Amino acid sequence: MDGQTLHIRRVGIDTWRENVVYLHRDCPVVRAAGFQALAKVSVRANGTVIQAVLNVVDDERIVPPCDLGLSEDAFARLGLPEGREAVIAHAEPPASIAALHRKIAGERLGHDDLHAIIRDVAAARYSKIELAAFVVATQQTDLDRDEVLHLTEAMIAAGRRLDWGAQVRGGPVVDKHCIGGIPGNRTSMLVVPIVTAHGMLCPKTSSRAITSPAGTADTMEVLAQVELPFDRLAAIVRETSGCLAWGGTADLSPADDILISVERPLALDSPGQMVASILSKKIAAGSTHLVLDIPIGPSAKVRSMPAAQRLKKLFEYVAGRLGLQLDVVISDGRQPIGRGIGPVLEARDVMQVLQNHPDAPHDLRQKALLLAGRVIEFDPDVRGGDGWRIARDILESGRALAQMNAIIDAQGRRAEPPPLGALTHTVTAPAAGTVLAIDNQRMARIARLAGAPLAPGAGVDLLARLGDAVQAGQPLYRLHAQFAADLAFASALADQDSAYRIGPAEAATSDGLGFTA
Amino acid sequence: MDGQTLHIRRVGIDTWRENVVYLHRDCPVVRAAGFQALAKVSVRANGTVIQAVLNVVDDERIVPPCDLGLSEDAFARLGLPEGREAVIAHAEPPASIAALHRKIAGERLGHDDLHAIIRDVAAARYSKIELAAFVVATQQTDLDRDEVLHLTEAMIAAGRRLDWGAQVRGGPVVDKHCIGGIPGNRTSMLVVPIVTAHGMLCPKTSSRAITSPAGTADTMEVLAQVELPFDRLAAIVRETSGCLAWGGTADLSPADDILISVERPLALDSPGQMVASILSKKIAAGSTHLVLDIPIGPSAKVRSMPAAQRLKKLFEYVAGRLGLQLDVVISDGRQPIGRGIGPVLEARDVMQVLQNHPDAPHDLRQKALLLAGRVIEFDPDVRGGDGWRIARDILESGRALAQMNAIIDAQGRRAEPPPLGALTHTVTAPAAGTVLAIDNQRMARIARLAGAPLAPGAGVDLLARLGDAVQAGQPLYRLHAQFAADLAFASALADQDSAYRIGPAEAATSDGLGFTA
Repeated sequence: MDGQTLHIRRVGIDTWRENVVYLHRDCPVVRAAGFQALAKVSVRANGTVIQAVLNVVDDERIVPPCDLGLSEDAFARLGLPEGREAVIAHAEPPASIAALHRKIAGERLGHDDLHAIIRDVAAARYSKIELAAFVVATQQTDLDRDEVLHLTEAMIAAGRRLDWGAQVRGGPVVDKHCIGGIPGNRTSMLVVPIVTAHGMLCPKTSSRAITSPAGTADTMEVLAQVELPFDRLAAIVRETSGCLAWGGTADLSPADDILISVERPLALDSPGQMVASILSKKIAAGSTHLVLDIPIGPSAKVRSMPAAQRLKKLFEYVAGRLGLQLDVVISDGRQPIGRGIGPVLEARDVMQVLQNHPDAPHDLRQKALLLAGRVIEFDPDVRGGDGWRIARDILESGRALAQMNAIIDAQGRRAEPPPLGALTHTVTAPAAGTVLAIDNQRMARIARLAGAPLAPGAGVDLLARLGDAVQAGQPLYRLHAQFAADLAFASALADQDSAYRIGPAEAATSDGLGFTA
Repeated sequence: MDGQTLHIRRVGIDTWRENVVYLHRDCPVVRAAGFQALAKVSVRANGTVIQAVLNVVDDERIVPPCDLGLSEDAFARLGLPEGREAVIAHAEPPASIAALHRKIAGERLGHDDLHAIIRDVAAARYSKIELAAFVVATQQTDLDRDEVLHLTEAMIAAGRRLDWGAQVRGGPVVDKHCIGGIPGNRTSMLVVPIVTAHGMLCPKTSSRAITSPAGTADTMEVLAQVELPFDRLAAIVRETSGCLAWGGTADLSPADDILISVERPLALDSPGQMVASILSKKIAAGSTHLVLDIPIGPSAKVRSMPAAQRLKKLFEYVAGRLGLQLDVVISDGRQPIGRGIGPVLEARDVMQVLQNHPDAPHDLRQKALLLAGRVIEFDPDVRGGDGWRIARDILESGRALAQMNAIIDAQGRRAEPPPLGALTHTVTAPAAGTVLAIDNQRMARIARLAGAPLAPGAGVDLLARLGDAVQAGQPLYRLHAQFAADLAFASALADQDSAYRIGPAEAATSDGLGFTA
C-alpha cells in the first residue's frame, strides 16, 4: 500500500476528461499492493499529484510490467516527459466525497462543500463514476437557489477570469446567450456585429455543438478560424470590440467542461446545472451585462410559461448576487429559427441577413434585432425602447456586415469555406394542409444523422414553416449530406417521421404560450 | 452513421464490467461517422450485438487505423476470434434509458421498467456512467417496497437459477446470510457444517471481500479451493449436502455483479439495493429458507433498532412475495466477531471453534450456534426452541468438524495453507481503563492496509474486547503483514487512532440497543 516507484509511459488513449492509469497485471506493484481494476490511485512525480482510475493490462505492447502507463489526459495533467519516475499509491478518496454522499442522501450543501467538490472536479480528482453521481444527485433533488449560487461561484473560482476593465473604463462588457434547444438559432453571429458596431465590447465565446447539429463555434468556423489562443483573442477584442470564438481554449470554467463530459452522454441538463454552467462562463469571461434568451415551445428545452418564469427567476437570483446585470427574453421556441440547420446552411442564413438579402430569413432577422436591441439598451446613453431601432439602423446601413467582415478578418478568414453537402434528399408533404407543428428535437436528430456538425456542409434546409399551407407532394425540407451512408440513414429517419405535423388549419390550437404562427 | 465494417482486434485491457471499443483517430470510420470519445457505439458480428463506449486511440501499437479494438470485457462478450469482421455504428441508447430518466426525475418505476433496466444492465448495454446514474437515482429517492420487489425479480430473471428439488424432495434448501460490515464475522463457515451435518441441504455461495478485509470466500480459500465450475459445485452439494464456494462463477445474478462494480467505488449501499442484491442471489441459488443476520452498532451498517426494523420489514416483504421463508436475526454489531481479522486469522478462529479448542473465541461460537439453531428450526421435525441445543450437540460431538473436513476435501483441500504474516506490530493501550468502544470500520481499514485480503496472512489479531479492563501498555491487538510497506502504512494508521476507545468503566453508557458487554 506504500508508494511504489515506476517509470512513466504515455499510452495514446484519449479517455476524455478522465485520468486513467494502465498497469500490467504482472507488475510487482499490482500484486503486492493489491490494486484492483477501477481502484483509484494517486500518482506523484516532481511535486505534482494526480488521481486516476486504474485499468489492468495484459499486453506488454500497451504497457510493460514495470512501467506506469498514463492515458493522454493523465499524461498531460502530470506534465512530465516519458521515462521519469513517479510514485503510485492507493488514493484517499477526494476530500469532498463526504459532501457528495450527503448530497446523494438529499441534504443541502453549503458554500464550503460546493467549493470543495468543484475544486476536486476541476483538478480531475473525480472519476467518471463520481462525476455521474454528482450530476445525478444535483439533478434529482433540485439544488436550491443558494446551492446554485455557490456552485456558480465555485465554478468561476476554479478557472481563469478575464478583466476588460482597461478597455471599457467602467462601461459595460456585454454578452448574449441562449439556453439552447432550437435548431438554426444563430442570433449571436448577428448580435455581436450589431452591438460592437454600436461601440460596445462583446468578447463572445461560444461552444461547439454538444447534442445539436451546430453550435455557434461550428457555424462561425465555416467563415473564420475560431480556435484562438487566449492572447490572440484579447488582441482581436481590443481591435474590433468583439469576437466570435470557441470558448474551450480559454479555460474559463474547467469544472463545467468536465461535468459536461458526463452530462452529455446522460442527456441530463437540470435548471441548477444550466444556470451555474452559463453564468460561470459569462462571469469568468468578464461580462458585466447579459441578455439571456429562453425559448419555449412543445419541443423546446422549456415547455411552459411557468417553467420559463421559474428558470428566469433562478437566473436572476444568481446573476444578481454575483453582480451581473441580466435581461431575460422569453422567446418563441415552437420551431427552428431561420431556414438552415447545420454549419454551412446556418452561415448562409446569417450572411443573408447581414447583407440585407431579399431571401434572408425574416424570423432570424427579427429575433436578432430584438436581442441586439436589448443589449444596446444596456448602454446608459440609450433610451429605453430605442434599442431595436438602433439595431435595425446598424443592420440596414451595412455597418453590421462591415463589422462582421472585420471580425472574420481579425480571427482569420477561411480562404475556401466548405461547400454545401452535394448529396440531397427532399422530404415532401404527404397530404395537403397547414403546418401545425415542427418537432425541434427530431429535426435536430435528422440533421445530425445527415452528418452535421462534423460534416459542416450537411444538414437540413427548411422549405415550409409553421402556419404555411402546403399541397400534397410539396417539399417540406431538403437534406444535405457529404456521405451516401449518412444521407441514407437520415432519409430513413425522416421518411419514418418527418418531424412535421400537417393538418387542417382549424386544428391549429392555441398552445397558451402567447405566440402566433 | 451507417454501419462500417472493421476487423476485430483484442486489446488486453481489463475495463472491469464495461465494454470499451478502441478506434484509432485516423480510422476512416471515426472521421466519416463523427464518432466522439465516450460515444456509445454498437458492434455487430455474427448475429451478436454488443454496446460499448468508445475510446479514441493515437497509437497504432494499441490499435491500427483499420482495426476495431475491443477491451477484454467486450472481446469476451462478442465471443469471436480476432480478425473476424464486425460492423460498428452509433448506438441507439438502451431502450430502458427513458425509464432511468424517469427515476432520476423522482418517479416510481413499475415492473416492466425495472425488468427492462436490469435486462439492459445484465447484457452490458449500460456504460459505467449510466450504471452510476441508476445506482444514485435508486439510492436517493428510496425505492418503495414494490420497486424493490420488481428489482429483485428482475435480477433473478436476468441470470441462471438453480433447482435442488431432486435432492430435497420438497424439503427446505437452507441458507444463512449476514448483511456485512462486522470484521471477523465468519459464522457461515460454522453454520454450513453444522446444518449440513443435521442433514439439511445448504449450497452456500459467498462473495469475496469488496470493501472488507475478508469475505467468506477469501477465508475458505485458505483451506480449500473455492472457484469451482458450476457442475462440480452441484456434484459436491449432492455428495456432502453443502459447500462453501465463491458465488461469482455461477452467473446467479449477473446484473448485481455489474451494479456492484459501481456501488463499490462509490461506497453506496442503499436498503433497496441491498435487499435486491441479497435476495436475488439466494433465490437464484435455489434457497427456499434463509436466516438473515442484521448486526447493529454504532459503527455497523445499521446503527439503530428502528433502522434495523425497517430493513427487516423490507426483507420480509420481498422474501414473502417471492416465496422465500425468511427468519431475521438482529444481532450485536458493536465490535468485531472472533479474534482474527483477515483470511488466515479468521480461518484459524473457525477451525478452533470446530475443534472445540479451549482458545476458540466464545463470541464466534455463540453466534454461530444461535444462527445454526435458527436454520435447524426450519426442519419441520424440529420443535421450536430446540435448534440451538441440536446445533451445540453437533458441534461438541465433532460431527461439525468431520463435515467441514468432508466439504474441504470435496472442494479440494489446499495442500499448504498460506502462513500468517510474519511481520508484526503490536498496538497497546495508552492508559489504564476499560474498552468502551471498538470501531468496526476503522478496524477493517487497518486490516486492509496491512494487506488483507490479497495477502491472506495479513490482518489484525484482537487481544482485548469490549468491556475488558486494560493496563497502560497492555496489547490491544497485533498487526500481521506480509510486506514491510504494508506494515508501515497500517501501523501509522493504527498509531494515529487505534480504533479502540478506552476510559473509566463508569463511562460505558447504554447505547439503547439492548446488548451488554
